[in-house]
Amino acid sequence: MELWFSEYQTKNVKLSFRVTDVIYTKQSEYQYISVFDTEDFGRVLALDDTVMLTTKDEFIYHEMISHIPLLTHGNAAKVLVIGGGDGGTVREILKHPVKEINLVEIDHEVIETSKKYFPAVSCGLSDPRVKIFCEDGIEFVKKHSGYDVIIIDSTDPIGPAVGLFSSQFYKNVFEALNDDGIMVAQTETPILFGDLIKRIYTDMSATFPYTNLYSAVIPTYPGAFWTFTMGSKSINPISQEISDIPFLETKYYSRELHKSYFVLPPFVKDIISK
Amino acid sequence: MELWFSEYQTKNVKLSFRVTDVIYTKQSEYQYISVFDTEDFGRVLALDDTVMLTTKDEFIYHEMISHIPLLTHGNAAKVLVIGGGDGGTVREILKHPVKEINLVEIDHEVIETSKKYFPAVSCGLSDPRVKIFCEDGIEFVKKHSGYDVIIIDSTDPIGPAVGLFSSQFYKNVFEALNDDGIMVAQTETPILFGDLIKRIYTDMSATFPYTNLYSAVIPTYPGAFWTFTMGSKSINPISQEISDIPFLETKYYSRELHKSYFVLPPFVKDIISK
Amino acid sequence: MELWFSEYQTKNVKLSFRVTDVIYTKQSEYQYISVFDTEDFGRVLALDDTVMLTTKDEFIYHEMISHIPLLTHGNAAKVLVIGGGDGGTVREILKHPVKEINLVEIDHEVIETSKKYFPAVSCGLSDPRVKIFCEDGIEFVKKHSGYDVIIIDSTDPIGPAVGLFSSQFYKNVFEALNDDGIMVAQTETPILFGDLIKRIYTDMSATFPYTNLYSAVIPTYPGAFWTFTMGSKSINPISQEISDIPFLETKYYSRELHKSYFVLPPFVKDIISK
Amino acid sequence: MELWFSEYQTKNVKLSFRVTDVIYTKQSEYQYISVFDTEDFGRVLALDDTVMLTTKDEFIYHEMISHIPLLTHGNAAKVLVIGGGDGGTVREILKHPVKEINLVEIDHEVIETSKKYFPAVSCGLSDPRVKIFCEDGIEFVKKHSGYDVIIIDSTDPIGPAVGLFSSQFYKNVFEALNDDGIMVAQTETPILFGDLIKRIYTDMSATFPYTNLYSAVIPTYPGAFWTFTMGSKSINPISQEISDIPFLETKYYSRELHKSYFVLPPFVKDIISK
Repeated sequence: MELWFSEYQTKNVKLSFRVTDVIYTKQSEYQYISVFDTEDFGRVLALDDTVMLTTKDEFIYHEMISHIPLLTHGNAAKVLVIGGGDGGTVREILKHPVKEINLVEIDHEVIETSKKYFPAVSCGLSDPRVKIFCEDGIEFVKKHSGYDVIIIDSTDPIGPAVGLFSSQFYKNVFEALNDDGIMVAQTETPILFGDLIKRIYTDMSATFPYTNLYSAVIPTYPGAFWTFTMGSKSINPISQEISDIPFLETKYYSRELHKSYFVLPPFVKDIISK
Repeated sequence: MELWFSEYQTKNVKLSFRVTDVIYTKQSEYQYISVFDTEDFGRVLALDDTVMLTTKDEFIYHEMISHIPLLTHGNAAKVLVIGGGDGGTVREILKHPVKEINLVEIDHEVIETSKKYFPAVSCGLSDPRVKIFCEDGIEFVKKHSGYDVIIIDSTDPIGPAVGLFSSQFYKNVFEALNDDGIMVAQTETPILFGDLIKRIYTDMSATFPYTNLYSAVIPTYPGAFWTFTMGSKSINPISQEISDIPFLETKYYSRELHKSYFVLPPFVKDIISK
Repeated sequence: MELWFSEYQTKNVKLSFRVTDVIYTKQSEYQYISVFDTEDFGRVLALDDTVMLTTKDEFIYHEMISHIPLLTHGNAAKVLVIGGGDGGTVREILKHPVKEINLVEIDHEVIETSKKYFPAVSCGLSDPRVKIFCEDGIEFVKKHSGYDVIIIDSTDPIGPAVGLFSSQFYKNVFEALNDDGIMVAQTETPILFGDLIKRIYTDMSATFPYTNLYSAVIPTYPGAFWTFTMGSKSINPISQEISDIPFLETKYYSRELHKSYFVLPPFVKDIISK
Repeated sequence: MELWFSEYQTKNVKLSFRVTDVIYTKQSEYQYISVFDTEDFGRVLALDDTVMLTTKDEFIYHEMISHIPLLTHGNAAKVLVIGGGDGGTVREILKHPVKEINLVEIDHEVIETSKKYFPAVSCGLSDPRVKIFCEDGIEFVKKHSGYDVIIIDSTDPIGPAVGLFSSQFYKNVFEALNDDGIMVAQTETPILFGDLIKRIYTDMSATFPYTNLYSAVIPTYPGAFWTFTMGSKSINPISQEISDIPFLETKYYSRELHKSYFVLPPFVKDIISK
């Protein structure tokens, strides 16, 4: 059927998927949530017409935002996820021997939607180690602390998520972390948004002794070359030997490449160092 | 202006660019050639409505298809490029101390178009070391030999390029290579075309003692996670120490990662080993 | 939501509607049936991605294909509709004092779909005067006769409906009509398909003593300027006084314009007379 | 080539044309002017991505906005056109024995563009009877008078053209007309913009003794069913016998239908009378 969903990845670039079925739509308090099935990328969750995940490639994002900081830390017991209401990041964190995960998702409708329509993504949300808070993550980090790893699994820096890309927020995250704590945030693509990446890197570097970018290819995100920016209070990711955890099953992340992920292509190095 | 070029990356996935100007169009003997300017990806060359290159991200493809086999070989004097009429691959090869490059492009209109509209890509085509043959690459390799490296810089395996993805062709390439020769071909994306990648890998492995995949993220190609498959007659890329060439300026390729490129994500390993 | 249905009105013209909900889709034996809600044109029925009707403008087509032949005839008792499984044409015919309507729709799934999802269109299908035959209309007219008016309410002349636009079919319809019988067929747009209209007019004229075109504007059909071609065995539509039937409620058809409808714009006259 | 121009006819309806060539684009002081060739509708002039004319169907609009008021008036010597910089309306007016045409087009770039790229449309602009004023039509009518017919050949009622759809403007036009003067304005489609048509009709009726709507089918305008609203100071269009001018060659307008054009479909009558 000639029925297509399009994401305007920028005002001038559009990625479109042929839709076989519209499963669910809802205007929540915060955003327009839609779930639909596509021919080539399986089921898709979109928020305000921006693809959050497809069942075809979500493993890449969720593995890379989780395993890199957790394995770098090596001994995380308490983890905070801001955003990530679909549960994919939690699912990956639960592959590690953590004791407690706090998930702070502002929009409880995202959680309900994922539980109902993406069981293979949201499966970890009912684990007894997971506590869900439907609150604003910006406020949450001001009032909570003691985390080993904090993962900012947010939407793009427009609308409600803007505050999650601010210098002050990184300072608050720093305070909420334990002394060997590590934060990581999804930080968009250098193909299209070099200035944003430069600013985030600069801001995070002003607070964290160690700031490192790494990347992953996410076919359904703008520019596909996606970055994550990691701030570390005392552990240097480059020299850290990664811990040996049994049974870490992954489809994209490769332990052999753990340190290689931090080696940036020259054009990305240029962006953050200019 | 609401003027958009769309590539059907598959029947069910479409990538669209807002066009600011149409620079040139021509139905050549082999394909429909178009050149247009876009807002976010600069100037684009498309063949039969498939994006060949954008000035924004072409460096990734051209660096990765060239430097990996050339640095693995370490001492290539004579290089054959099949396809690649835009000249981007030749430009990268010329960063190495080669003595002769043969470019076999079936459609001379592609070469003319690139020379006229993509000077920064085609710049190496006038180098005295480059000999251009406007012929069918499939026939060419049956009649020529003595190459250190052969690069298959082709369009997708539909239409005229089908023969460039065949088992017999790989055998002919093997014969055309010197004893320590290396071939590489662009081999599409595992995100969408796992079966194709598996078949190519199997076919190339049947001929070459060493067959290795590596990948790069190419934002404007289908699936973005792009693979290259490399066949080597005697050099094992995994154990080979890469040579130290001065002045290899790159924007994507990183010498530090040379061996890491051959480490595949588990889901790609699964595809080629199942 | 950025969810759009597009109809390729030709290979080179596309009309797209923003979709708010997909109500129903089904691959029937004959075609792909889809029902969806749009922002501006209400609910839409599409067959093989071609818009059959929208609740916003269906009244125009259904009134014009029915009232012109029926009022021209003036005393129709038995009416045959070929195609028209949605029931819109039947609904309009039932505004006249007819005794029997035969509806011959090849695809019973169209009837079921309309009954379920378009009650205001299909409402007349359960009238006791209506007999529904799920058969091929081309065969049906060879075996049935005695009709005062035959209405060809078909899809476009591609695929199964091709035979409904043939010279032989018009001859068979002629035989199935009473001596003062009238047929009418929907016959596409002169804006885009002048040759087709010329051919239909020529073919119908070869069989019927009186052949007349009339038109209506149908916003959601290709070219919007839509024609109907009417063949009459003995009544001359131009000189016939139209009968006075009480209570003919219409939204587009205007009795004042009955004869004006047969006056064609010069460019359409040119098409059929050249 | 998969190169498409799309007009958002509303936020939720889009008409797209496959483009074969982009001929000219320019950001003028007032609007973005584009000229491009399409497969099925010939050359297109668009202002701010809204189709002004296609060489395929422009005759319909230009004939209907001109001949109806001029033939109703019967003896127009001095005619004012506001907007209409492409020249199509002037071309049609020149088929009548007028003495003077004033064309008031705010954007001289539209005139230059049409002269250069649409010779068959702009051909009349160099006629000695035509005086061109590159001014704001709203101001112009306050300062000029003595017209027999005034034609408002404007863009849609957004942006600079808003004032051309106001009650005060109609009053000023009334003053600028001779005692038997007639104005006409293009007034959009009742399929999508019933409220607008109702308001225009009400406003014009408050000033003019005779106000009449008529329509034409314009395939490339939103809704296709296009209206024109005509205000007359003393001539009643319904009872007026139209004059007999030799050699009025038209392709859409039909003198036989002159009075029929003022008979509205019931659904349009409902809109303006409710």
